[in-house]
Amino acid sequence: MNKRIVLASYPEGWVTDANFRLETAPLPKPAEGEVLVKNLWLSLDPYMRGRISQQKSYVKGVEIGEVMTGETAGEVVESKHPKFKPGDKVTAPAGWQLYWSGKGEMITRVDASKVPLSYFLGCLGMPGRTAYFGMKDICAPKAGETVVVSAASGAVGSVVGQLAKAWGCRAVGIAGGKAKCDYVAKELGFDACIDHKAGNLFENLKAACPKGVDALFENVGGEILDTVLRLMNLRGRITICGLISDYNAKEPYGVKMFRSILVNRLIVRGMIVFDFLERYPEANQALLQLVTSGKLKTRESVVEGIENAPKGLIGLLKGENFGKQLVKLT
Amino acid sequence: MNKRIVLASYPEGWVTDANFRLETAPLPKPAEGEVLVKNLWLSLDPYMRGRISQQKSYVKGVEIGEVMTGETAGEVVESKHPKFKPGDKVTAPAGWQLYWSGKGEMITRVDASKVPLSYFLGCLGMPGRTAYFGMKDICAPKAGETVVVSAASGAVGSVVGQLAKAWGCRAVGIAGGKAKCDYVAKELGFDACIDHKAGNLFENLKAACPKGVDALFENVGGEILDTVLRLMNLRGRITICGLISDYNAKEPYGVKMFRSILVNRLIVRGMIVFDFLERYPEANQALLQLVTSGKLKTRESVVEGIENAPKGLIGLLKGENFGKQLVKLT
Repeated sequence: MNKRIVLASYPEGWVTDANFRLETAPLPKPAEGEVLVKNLWLSLDPYMRGRISQQKSYVKGVEIGEVMTGETAGEVVESKHPKFKPGDKVTAPAGWQLYWSGKGEMITRVDASKVPLSYFLGCLGMPGRTAYFGMKDICAPKAGETVVVSAASGAVGSVVGQLAKAWGCRAVGIAGGKAKCDYVAKELGFDACIDHKAGNLFENLKAACPKGVDALFENVGGEILDTVLRLMNLRGRITICGLISDYNAKEPYGVKMFRSILVNRLIVRGMIVFDFLERYPEANQALLQLVTSGKLKTRESVVEGIENAPKGLIGLLKGENFGKQLVKLT
Repeated sequence: MNKRIVLASYPEGWVTDANFRLETAPLPKPAEGEVLVKNLWLSLDPYMRGRISQQKSYVKGVEIGEVMTGETAGEVVESKHPKFKPGDKVTAPAGWQLYWSGKGEMITRVDASKVPLSYFLGCLGMPGRTAYFGMKDICAPKAGETVVVSAASGAVGSVVGQLAKAWGCRAVGIAGGKAKCDYVAKELGFDACIDHKAGNLFENLKAACPKGVDALFENVGGEILDTVLRLMNLRGRITICGLISDYNAKEPYGVKMFRSILVNRLIVRGMIVFDFLERYPEANQALLQLVTSGKLKTRESVVEGIENAPKGLIGLLKGENFGKQLVKLT
């Protein structure tokens, strides 16, 4: 039997367990050209909040009763597609469920012989590519410049800062709590990481960025964004990748330092990784090279069992995760 | 004798007459390489509010007791510079005064034989070039796209919309009051102009932009910016040229629709015209061609006498001007 989690109701404000429902269903049967995938890992990501919101977002949301959206890493168990065979390791847009069946063209074969399979949902997957393109194309830092990233211990943020270091920049993270900040600065090798829960964010960031901020990779928004805006240098660049602080707010935060965009002639650009679809191979290659050479480290936060996926997402939205949030499905 | 207006005190909130002082002084004498200019027109511009603020801005501000910053159009009356002779019409960074002396390299000779001299402070001067580069390089509209501009009857906004029309776009203005809106739509030829003082800005703008907004040229900020952000199309562009609604506010407005930047993958860029200094000839030529061919109309709002320059600036900051604000000095 298949187990899956469907949307029971749209959350208002914070997501709760009651917004989801666990269902069982017969195993799907692949038709001609399709594959059956057994999902081993489910990725939980902040974008999911947008999918269960009734606000306009960049793609269609999940309907009530539909299986929750999500990417998985797993194994082909049955194939009616010429390019796949049982045992192939793949990533798939499978949603929150144990088994998925669909067209072979929708899944991606990955080589998990040198790195753990789960990495293809994190530093070598969508979050890693998000970091790569946001940095390469928008933040576009030159060696010696200062790059700030919020949610620095997260799946995207941790890659952003390590890319900054690999490219010769000063990398300054912002994260919530001492443990995350210690990890970012000591284990990931950022030059500094500021705890936004400790107070004095402006003063602490200013001290950590003695030459100001040339590029900001924004995952959080709200007061953090407003604070970094005060420290931006002339012709700075800001990648707006996420605004997680707003996702559960009933009223969005009002950004007061818009003036910095004018005075400093900033370029602020919103990004979604699938705008860069054609260039995924470039990112995959660059990230794999960094991982295998030890320059890109990663940390995973794992909940066990499909039934705990809602708890995992709720924790992620509250910043309780530490590193890439995954659900181990078997 | 020279007459000039100096800064008496920094304004807090709204600018008042008491922030300025009229002085008389001996005529300046040009040294070798210098010229003496008799100023005929003084330009008043929103950027001046930033020069008398103690907040960080993009250039050094005016000190207490210093002559107010400003550009003038006038006539060379004495020249110790080989490239200028008495009678030459020029623009100069002369400030708020009747006479100015300085290096010949600081002034620009203009040909006022075909167009009024004052145009070189407006549609053929800094405001015109601001509109040109903000449109050409940042808004970058394609024919058929919808361009929205705030402060649409002003020196910059009126050029923005007429450029949009000249380039085959739908031009929608936002202005304060029926008279300005009628002028923008009927005399300048915008497709529509919405009165932000009449209420229902969102609904009215939405009706005027049935295909959404592809490019916004923002001069005002605040609620107007927040409202247009709700109507932006995918991959829209926003030129942040001015935020006049904030300039006199003690607390800046908080922009709530930052989410639109993410969801629609907008590019938002601050601009200051002097970043484009090397390309002024390109703008000057394009604008002059439009003016002489009747495709770029302009309107001037004139106060008489240097002693009324503060009133002119105060009115401009309150939106009481109608078209390019000038002071006629003689």
